[in-house]
Amino acid sequence: MTEQANRGLEGVVVGETRTSLVDGAAGRLSYGGYCIEDLAAHASFEEIVYLLWHNRLPDVAELEALRHDIASNARLPETLLAQLRSFPLDADPMAVLESALAALSFHDADAADNSLEAARRKAIRLTGQITTLCAAWIRLRQGDDPIAPRNDLSLAGNFLYMLRGEEPDETATAALNVYLVLLAEHGMNASTFTARVVTATESDIHSAVVAAISALKGPAHGGANSAAMNMFIEIGEPCRVADWFRDEVLDKRRRIMGIGHRVYKAPDPRARVLKQHARALAASSGNSKWFDIAEKLELAARANEFFIQRRLFPNVDYYSAILLYTIDLDVDMFTPLFVMSRIAGWSAHIFEQKRNNRLIRPKANYVGPLDLEWKPVTERPVQSTG
Amino acid sequence: MTEQANRGLEGVVVGETRTSLVDGAAGRLSYGGYCIEDLAAHASFEEIVYLLWHNRLPDVAELEALRHDIASNARLPETLLAQLRSFPLDADPMAVLESALAALSFHDADAADNSLEAARRKAIRLTGQITTLCAAWIRLRQGDDPIAPRNDLSLAGNFLYMLRGEEPDETATAALNVYLVLLAEHGMNASTFTARVVTATESDIHSAVVAAISALKGPAHGGANSAAMNMFIEIGEPCRVADWFRDEVLDKRRRIMGIGHRVYKAPDPRARVLKQHARALAASSGNSKWFDIAEKLELAARANEFFIQRRLFPNVDYYSAILLYTIDLDVDMFTPLFVMSRIAGWSAHIFEQKRNNRLIRPKANYVGPLDLEWKPVTERPVQSTG
Repeated sequence: MTEQANRGLEGVVVGETRTSLVDGAAGRLSYGGYCIEDLAAHASFEEIVYLLWHNRLPDVAELEALRHDIASNARLPETLLAQLRSFPLDADPMAVLESALAALSFHDADAADNSLEAARRKAIRLTGQITTLCAAWIRLRQGDDPIAPRNDLSLAGNFLYMLRGEEPDETATAALNVYLVLLAEHGMNASTFTARVVTATESDIHSAVVAAISALKGPAHGGANSAAMNMFIEIGEPCRVADWFRDEVLDKRRRIMGIGHRVYKAPDPRARVLKQHARALAASSGNSKWFDIAEKLELAARANEFFIQRRLFPNVDYYSAILLYTIDLDVDMFTPLFVMSRIAGWSAHIFEQKRNNRLIRPKANYVGPLDLEWKPVTERPVQSTG
Repeated sequence: MTEQANRGLEGVVVGETRTSLVDGAAGRLSYGGYCIEDLAAHASFEEIVYLLWHNRLPDVAELEALRHDIASNARLPETLLAQLRSFPLDADPMAVLESALAALSFHDADAADNSLEAARRKAIRLTGQITTLCAAWIRLRQGDDPIAPRNDLSLAGNFLYMLRGEEPDETATAALNVYLVLLAEHGMNASTFTARVVTATESDIHSAVVAAISALKGPAHGGANSAAMNMFIEIGEPCRVADWFRDEVLDKRRRIMGIGHRVYKAPDPRARVLKQHARALAASSGNSKWFDIAEKLELAARANEFFIQRRLFPNVDYYSAILLYTIDLDVDMFTPLFVMSRIAGWSAHIFEQKRNNRLIRPKANYVGPLDLEWKPVTERPVQSTG
C-alpha cells in the first residue's frame, strides 16, 4: 500500500500502436510512417481515415469507396433531428454531441453486433454522422433548418455545404481539409486513452466515442483553441497586441493560450501548416484582422527571452483557432470540429484495442481510516450546526 | 520505444483514495474504514452516499437533509421525458442512460459552474435523477406513463414506488437498499477509472458519469449479473442443475457466470449478504425457483475439486442477479441498476480527482513503419480486387 502513485501515468506504456508517432523533442509527427507535412500538403481527410484504419494508404478505388461510404451514411434519422430540435439553443455543443451520439446507437444497423468488423462499419457511419450533427446543430441554433449531406462531396466539402447550403468554395474546403488531417490523430492523449479504457470493457464503439467526447470536452484537453480565440477576441485589434503583451504577459504573467505544449519542445509541425492556411483563408475572406493579431502576438512572444529559453512555440491550437473562426464558426463549435477530425484516430485506437484486448484497471492507494466501529445514526455526535 | 507495455495497468498506482479498501486475498471490503458487513446490515444507501462523499458518517440532520435533497431533486424535466418517449422501445437501456444524462446537463442549474462545490450539488441531482430515469424507462417501454418521485421516500423506496405506483413493500425495499449499499463503490475499477480520466481533463461531472456508464456498459465490466441471470434462465428448473453442471461445466468447460473474481481469492463478502436477502425476497415473493437454482449450482461448484483448488466463489453478481430478477426487473435493466448505485462511488472519485488533479496521459509504443515516402493515390499499386 506504500507504492508511489503516478497520478498522470507519465511514461507508463499502456500498449502498442501503429497509428502515429509523436516526437516532441524533434518536433516531428507522422501517421502510419508518413510525415505530417506530406500528409497536410497532399492528403484528403478520407485518405487519412483509410491510413489510420488500415495502416496503409488506399488505392484509387478504395479511397473513392470510403469517401462515398462516409458521405452516403452521413444522413441523420428523423427522430434524431427531432431530438436535436428539443434541446435548448444554449446547450453546450459537446454535450449535444454526447447525447446525440449515444442515441445514434439505437438506430445503427449493427447495434447488436460488437465484432471488429461491425465496429469498422459503425465507424464509417459515425464519421459521416458527426459531420452532419455539427452542421445541423449550428443551423438549428441560428434558427435555420438542417441541410442533408450530399453523396458526391468530400467530408470537408460536405460540412461547408451543410453549413451554408451552397457549393463550398475551394480555399475554405482546402483549409478545413488540412485542419481535419492535422487533428485526426495524436498518440495516447486523454480522450484516445478514454476510448481505449471503455473499449477494453468490451463496450461498443458508440459508447467509446461518447466517452472520448466527454474527455475532449475538458478545457485542459480539447478547449485550448477556444481559449486562444477568446484571447484574440479580447485583444480585439492588431494595434493593441504590443500593449496587451506588455500588460498581460510581461506584467501579469498571463499564459498565452495556444503557445507551448506538454509534448512538443520544438515547433509543433502542425502549427506551421495551419498558419499558411489561416493566412490564405484570411486573405480570401477579405478580413485578416484575426490572423494579424495572432501573427503579431506570435512574433512578440518569439522575440522574448522567456519564450525563447523555455522553447515555447505556437501549437496546433493557435492558428487552428484563426482558421475555424475565419470560416465563421462560433468559438464554442471549435471542440466539436475537433471531434469531427479525431473520430478518425479514436476509431483506429478502438480497432487496435479490440484486436488485442485486456481490461484496463490500475490501482489506488487507500489512505483513509481502518477498522472503524459502526454506530447507529442516533448515537453519533451531532456535527451539523444549523 | 522499447519499454515493456503494461496493457492492463495491473499494479500501477494512479492515485490515492479514501473511498474504499478492497482486500481480495482476505475477502474483505470496507468503505471509509467501515466493514461492508456492518454497512450492509445497518446503513441506508443515503448514509453510504454521505460516507463516500464526506469521508465520515452523517448525523441525524445531515442524513435527513441528504435524503430529502436527493428525493426532491429527482424529478426529470418535461423535455427530457419527451426525449425518452422518442427513443425506440428496444433501445439498449445503458445507451438510453448515456443519452439522457448528457441531456440532463443542459437543464442543470449549475451547468456553467465546474467547481468542486457545484459538482457536489450536481451529484445530488444526478443520484436522484438516475433513479427516476431507470424507473421511467422501465415504465415507458412497457407502455405505462412514468411516475414522479416522492419527497418523503428513501432512494430504494422511491425507485420501487416509481416502478409500481404503489407503496413499496418492506422486504423489497430492504433488499434493494442492500443491493445499492453493496454496489456503491469498489476501488479503481474500469468505470471509476474512466470517470477519473475524464475529470482530469477538467471536464464536468455529467460528462464523467456518461463516460463511466459507457465503460460499465461493457460485458467484461458491468454485464456479469445479466450473464449470470441468463445462465439461470437457461437452466430453467432446480431439478436440472445437476445435469447442467455435468454437461456444461464439467464436459464443455463452460464458465459459471458470477463465480470467481479478478480481485477476490476468498469469498466475496458482498455475496453472502446478497444471498440472505435474495433468499428472504424469494420466500416473500412466493417464487423461490431462481434462488433454488442459484443455490444448488453454488453447492455443486463448491463441492467440485476444480472450484475448490482455484478458490472460485460466488461474487457480487451471482446473487444480485436473483435479487434483481425477483423484484421483477428485466435482465437488461440490471446494469442500469448498477449505475443507480455506483453513481455514489463514481462521484466520490470525481471529487477526489478534482481536489488533487493531474491530466492522465500514458504512452503507447509506436510499432508501425517509419519514414515512408508519399505517393499520390494515382501512382499507388492497385490493391483492391473488385
